[in-house]
Amino acid sequence: MLISCVVYKDGKKLADIDVADIHKYLSQPECLVWVALVEPDGVALAQLQEEFNLHPLAVEDARHGHQRAKIEEYGDSLFVVLHLVEEEAEELHVGEVNIFTGRNYVLTVRSRTQKGFQDVRARAEREPELLRQGAGYVLYALMDSVVDRYFPLLDKLEVELEAIEEKLFADTSPRVNIESLYALKQKLMTVRHAVAPLAEAVSNLSGSRVPSICSGMREYFRDVYDHLQRLNQTIESERDTVATAISVNLSMIQLQENDTMKRLAAYGALIAVPTAIAGVYGMNFEYMPELHWRYGYLVSLGVMAFIDGYLFYKLRKAKWL
Amino acid sequence: MLISCVVYKDGKKLADIDVADIHKYLSQPECLVWVALVEPDGVALAQLQEEFNLHPLAVEDARHGHQRAKIEEYGDSLFVVLHLVEEEAEELHVGEVNIFTGRNYVLTVRSRTQKGFQDVRARAEREPELLRQGAGYVLYALMDSVVDRYFPLLDKLEVELEAIEEKLFADTSPRVNIESLYALKQKLMTVRHAVAPLAEAVSNLSGSRVPSICSGMREYFRDVYDHLQRLNQTIESERDTVATAISVNLSMIQLQENDTMKRLAAYGALIAVPTAIAGVYGMNFEYMPELHWRYGYLVSLGVMAFIDGYLFYKLRKAKWL
Amino acid sequence: MLISCVVYKDGKKLADIDVADIHKYLSQPECLVWVALVEPDGVALAQLQEEFNLHPLAVEDARHGHQRAKIEEYGDSLFVVLHLVEEEAEELHVGEVNIFTGRNYVLTVRSRTQKGFQDVRARAEREPELLRQGAGYVLYALMDSVVDRYFPLLDKLEVELEAIEEKLFADTSPRVNIESLYALKQKLMTVRHAVAPLAEAVSNLSGSRVPSICSGMREYFRDVYDHLQRLNQTIESERDTVATAISVNLSMIQLQENDTMKRLAAYGALIAVPTAIAGVYGMNFEYMPELHWRYGYLVSLGVMAFIDGYLFYKLRKAKWL
Amino acid sequence: MLISCVVYKDGKKLADIDVADIHKYLSQPECLVWVALVEPDGVALAQLQEEFNLHPLAVEDARHGHQRAKIEEYGDSLFVVLHLVEEEAEELHVGEVNIFTGRNYVLTVRSRTQKGFQDVRARAEREPELLRQGAGYVLYALMDSVVDRYFPLLDKLEVELEAIEEKLFADTSPRVNIESLYALKQKLMTVRHAVAPLAEAVSNLSGSRVPSICSGMREYFRDVYDHLQRLNQTIESERDTVATAISVNLSMIQLQENDTMKRLAAYGALIAVPTAIAGVYGMNFEYMPELHWRYGYLVSLGVMAFIDGYLFYKLRKAKWL
Amino acid sequence: MLISCVVYKDGKKLADIDVADIHKYLSQPECLVWVALVEPDGVALAQLQEEFNLHPLAVEDARHGHQRAKIEEYGDSLFVVLHLVEEEAEELHVGEVNIFTGRNYVLTVRSRTQKGFQDVRARAEREPELLRQGAGYVLYALMDSVVDRYFPLLDKLEVELEAIEEKLFADTSPRVNIESLYALKQKLMTVRHAVAPLAEAVSNLSGSRVPSICSGMREYFRDVYDHLQRLNQTIESERDTVATAISVNLSMIQLQENDTMKRLAAYGALIAVPTAIAGVYGMNFEYMPELHWRYGYLVSLGVMAFIDGYLFYKLRKAKWL
Repeated sequence: MLISCVVYKDGKKLADIDVADIHKYLSQPECLVWVALVEPDGVALAQLQEEFNLHPLAVEDARHGHQRAKIEEYGDSLFVVLHLVEEEAEELHVGEVNIFTGRNYVLTVRSRTQKGFQDVRARAEREPELLRQGAGYVLYALMDSVVDRYFPLLDKLEVELEAIEEKLFADTSPRVNIESLYALKQKLMTVRHAVAPLAEAVSNLSGSRVPSICSGMREYFRDVYDHLQRLNQTIESERDTVATAISVNLSMIQLQENDTMKRLAAYGALIAVPTAIAGVYGMNFEYMPELHWRYGYLVSLGVMAFIDGYLFYKLRKAKWL
Repeated sequence: MLISCVVYKDGKKLADIDVADIHKYLSQPECLVWVALVEPDGVALAQLQEEFNLHPLAVEDARHGHQRAKIEEYGDSLFVVLHLVEEEAEELHVGEVNIFTGRNYVLTVRSRTQKGFQDVRARAEREPELLRQGAGYVLYALMDSVVDRYFPLLDKLEVELEAIEEKLFADTSPRVNIESLYALKQKLMTVRHAVAPLAEAVSNLSGSRVPSICSGMREYFRDVYDHLQRLNQTIESERDTVATAISVNLSMIQLQENDTMKRLAAYGALIAVPTAIAGVYGMNFEYMPELHWRYGYLVSLGVMAFIDGYLFYKLRKAKWL
Repeated sequence: MLISCVVYKDGKKLADIDVADIHKYLSQPECLVWVALVEPDGVALAQLQEEFNLHPLAVEDARHGHQRAKIEEYGDSLFVVLHLVEEEAEELHVGEVNIFTGRNYVLTVRSRTQKGFQDVRARAEREPELLRQGAGYVLYALMDSVVDRYFPLLDKLEVELEAIEEKLFADTSPRVNIESLYALKQKLMTVRHAVAPLAEAVSNLSGSRVPSICSGMREYFRDVYDHLQRLNQTIESERDTVATAISVNLSMIQLQENDTMKRLAAYGALIAVPTAIAGVYGMNFEYMPELHWRYGYLVSLGVMAFIDGYLFYKLRKAKWL
Repeated sequence: MLISCVVYKDGKKLADIDVADIHKYLSQPECLVWVALVEPDGVALAQLQEEFNLHPLAVEDARHGHQRAKIEEYGDSLFVVLHLVEEEAEELHVGEVNIFTGRNYVLTVRSRTQKGFQDVRARAEREPELLRQGAGYVLYALMDSVVDRYFPLLDKLEVELEAIEEKLFADTSPRVNIESLYALKQKLMTVRHAVAPLAEAVSNLSGSRVPSICSGMREYFRDVYDHLQRLNQTIESERDTVATAISVNLSMIQLQENDTMKRLAAYGALIAVPTAIAGVYGMNFEYMPELHWRYGYLVSLGVMAFIDGYLFYKLRKAKWL
Repeated sequence: MLISCVVYKDGKKLADIDVADIHKYLSQPECLVWVALVEPDGVALAQLQEEFNLHPLAVEDARHGHQRAKIEEYGDSLFVVLHLVEEEAEELHVGEVNIFTGRNYVLTVRSRTQKGFQDVRARAEREPELLRQGAGYVLYALMDSVVDRYFPLLDKLEVELEAIEEKLFADTSPRVNIESLYALKQKLMTVRHAVAPLAEAVSNLSGSRVPSICSGMREYFRDVYDHLQRLNQTIESERDTVATAISVNLSMIQLQENDTMKRLAAYGALIAVPTAIAGVYGMNFEYMPELHWRYGYLVSLGVMAFIDGYLFYKLRKAKWL
């Protein structure tokens, strides 16, 4: 589905144009054509492929979707795949935006995602002095926008992790903890798969051999790269923490088992001792003087109670109860 | 066994030829000889080695089989080993295709595998404008076909993993889970051994110094490389998940042990308490007033039942039963 | 908040100047302007951006804060982000200092931190022959000061680790140990995030292609790099030790469980044996000669005591009690 | 001990010569001197050092033995250390062969190993067209022979691993499994120490800057390198599998403990229930009607038997027995 | 403290000189000044700094001590830090030697260590043809001596590891094992911190761009590097083995727990069965024919003994006892 197809000149919007007219404007080097598609069908993609003269392999990738985040050069033009990770009902969904960009055009193809890039276009239109810098700037603005969306996502995962950490040593919920840690690990992996290959790819846009579209924008792409590195570092550190937390949780489970066993043993002792005493006085010896005492029974009960009381006191003191 | 031995000219099939005539066509640079063998014996290989003037080390590798996936240059020609992983009765089998390719010939030697490359040849014959590009294109088409076969395989392993994950926290089958996880890990390893060395090798076909056969096909081999990277990433991520799942499973086993122990203790208490009470009234003291009560026996049974009932209620509430 | 804004000439303080006059002095190459800000608002930053002609992306980074430790070149000038880790009430807090430096100016922007860099300025003013070397020297002095602050921090963590190690095999506090180890691991991670990316960045200042500001200071920056490497190595080694200690702790917990179980069983035996004997003499057979013995009861008690005594001796010897 | 000292010319054996005459033949560039020593004493080594003009550091290494597998250039000559791993009585023994090779000589020094390289010499003498290629070919043939000996070794370890895997989930022998896995891991490490550094070293013989002795043999050394990579991959994969198997084994031990505990509890219940019932009927209440029933005793025994029978049925169904 | 301060000329000792005269000899290029200090105070260091014109940063490092093992170039001169690991009362102590070396001088500063380098000097003085090679040779000889001291240390750790391995599966001392493994791991780490950074540093002395002092000594430094690599490999392999042994030990602890539990249960059964039988005959039913048998009591005891005997036999056969 076509969202917009606009020609800009000198940083200002010239006109909404028809897809079929794109090639006319492309031949004017001072114009910039910026087209946005969402979930396009094959026909729409084929038409744009022809208008922009896109490489068939890149179009194939855009059609199939589910590519790695990457930046590929095809001659003078670039093909960029970015992952858009959105949270919905406690689950992370991975969408994709494919960006085809050449000397004076940008084509974005968005799939499996809610939020678009209207804000990027709006800002660009408000600031003509930036838009005037051409396709390289638009590519930067789109990438910057995508990368900025990862931060609140990671912050949320960090909050989840802290919530688990608070319960980790609390002894109450090892089962819930392990489930949460596993789920968190999976989410971190999802974000990592969006961030890590992109960081690798962007490093080429800020290195020594930069594609011509991005020349003059090196500092800007280095900034994006830097943000990606920061994300990467946070992800690695959280992954490491989750791994440690999982093994700590195992120790806590084991400690809880120790505690359970001690408590069981303590209660067992409180029952076994009177049983043994009762057994003794259930023996049928002829000569057992205590049996004939007036208060033998009461005394025996008293002894049982006293021993249990003493045991209870000792066990409580030893934290077994 | 020879499957086919065909000469193409200008992208179109010229004729099925005899192996002994190959060298005649090889000397015509505008011809492309494409030969396919399956499980060849030494004689057939030796004949083809002579016709194509293949390097003895490469032929040796093809004869022995069980090589790593790799791409080797011998002067102007390339020797490529690809692994074919096929599933059969829940097990993965690894076959191999060895490709010898020079300026105007392609020789494929397939071993230990069911499915051939008839579809690749069929497509190539349907699209002469591609086949016209020569041996480099055929090599790409074969590799692309091999790589595309890994995706459904990995998808299947992903489905297996998800099935295990669903049971991971369900407490019912830790033994089955650990077996499945171990088996899954082995399968991932098998696919990884096909994919990882190939990715490394293909990166050379899309890098700066490309063998002359593949020149002009750089974007195509980069695309293959990209797919291999995607496979690699998925494999690594699943391996990581399997490792986490194995340690989570250990925690679940431990938690189950805790639960078993609690349940045992609970049942033990339900038996031990009446035993202790009965022991008390089994004592032989002369003066035990309750023994002479009319309903002493019933009261004692009632007390036992009441205590057990109360215990049962408390233990159930504490989730020990 | 502006802390100081001073012009130096030939290594000596010339004057405290107004922010608005900075550009006048900047145009005199023999002057060095050194400005220090702490927690500045947007207005102050904007004014300094104009005076020093700072790159908007760098200023943006300084405004947002929470960047990775890094060193970025913007043309002739450098933008440096350093992390300041301070301990407060057993917790580590991470602050930040952003340094903008050009041919003849240094601007430091400090955030979320207690301790400033007055000592660096004081030392520089005391030693004019060093300050005469210009902005590169000031940058070195600031970095050296930051890096030197990490050492006592790490020493403290090393002491914490040794304290845990002493208790690790003592059997008394596995729960406390695991909590301490987890907390220690987190702190190590915090310091690592300050040190590791900085080490990587500084290596560029001591390598072959050095920014012009730092030329002639290579040995000094290599020294800083070397200190960072030393920190890195210590951190990695402590992380490794913590990981081993966590798994050792799990083994200790397990061993303690074994010991608990043995002690339980031992006490169980001490109770079960007399109970069984008492049970035997509680049988109602007509012909049980012992029952009619004069000292049958005493003998039976004696036997119980003897067996328990013997068991106690044996169990103590086997270290079960 | 000298095994053989032979001069070859034009690929054919010229004569067995005396060690003292080596230098005479060395000066004839069309001759190839190939000397084989085994466990030489210092005197023999010193004599050969003089004859071949070997570098003292290389000779020192050969004398001490226990070097890493490596390939070192000393001017025009090469010094190669290869590890020979031999199995004997289920244990792996590591021997060593040191190869000194120059433009027209090869000297092999073998230590702590059973099997020599007579087969390599025999093949070389049978195929003069290969031997004619000189010292580089002999070096290749020796390395190829050493590398080929690793394969059956690794195959054997793979068989061992499969044997363990079959027992891994069988519940019968966790103790034996863990011992076997540990032993297997050690053996893999031994082979790895022979293979991994050698692979690294050989990669230099097949790379861009090849020592002059090996020029023209690049494809051959690449083949050796490729075999070493294959070995490396197999070793890494088995190491990984062993690590997983060790952690799986721990889970199996834990599961077995769960099962043991359940079985114990089941048997405990089968004894505890009759004990409790007997206890009830051992009470001394005056009015217990059942006691006076004609078949009270039999009924009570019947009730005990029935409850135990029912419990047994239930526990068996729940797989606790 | 000054140990010696000697001038050599043409490989032979010229004279013991005064520190204050060093600069006179330094100006004679054919002389070599070799000074050895141990635990020097600031004054001594300052004097030597002036005599040799040492770089202040290097002197600072030597004064502070506790540097990483490293090799730094300061113009034409080198500053080398080596770690000396010495064992004393089962503990490893890390000392340090700092070597300042220039075209014709060597200054060693030794701290926190017992053993000096008198043997190196003695050997050098015995072999003037080596010493004649100048400062580069002395540096090599010192490094070689330091590296050679690591080998017996590692051998000792290997022996310790083997001693633990022998007890690992013996079931007797898991607690001692885990402590030993932890201690061993720490020691390996200590040696590793001496070896690993040094290996990295030395690789630069044997690579393509060698400092002028060491030119012509490339093979010698490569030999040192090679030894360091061998040490590194051994350390890594032992670390890996220790990690495996720790996890194996955990499995052994768990297995022991299983065994303990089984033994407990077996003894429990041997007591519980007679108790239950005694309970049955303690019941007060009127009609229990056995009670009136002449040998009822003996028969009941016999039955108890028989069942226990049978159980004992079965449990022993099942290895539970």
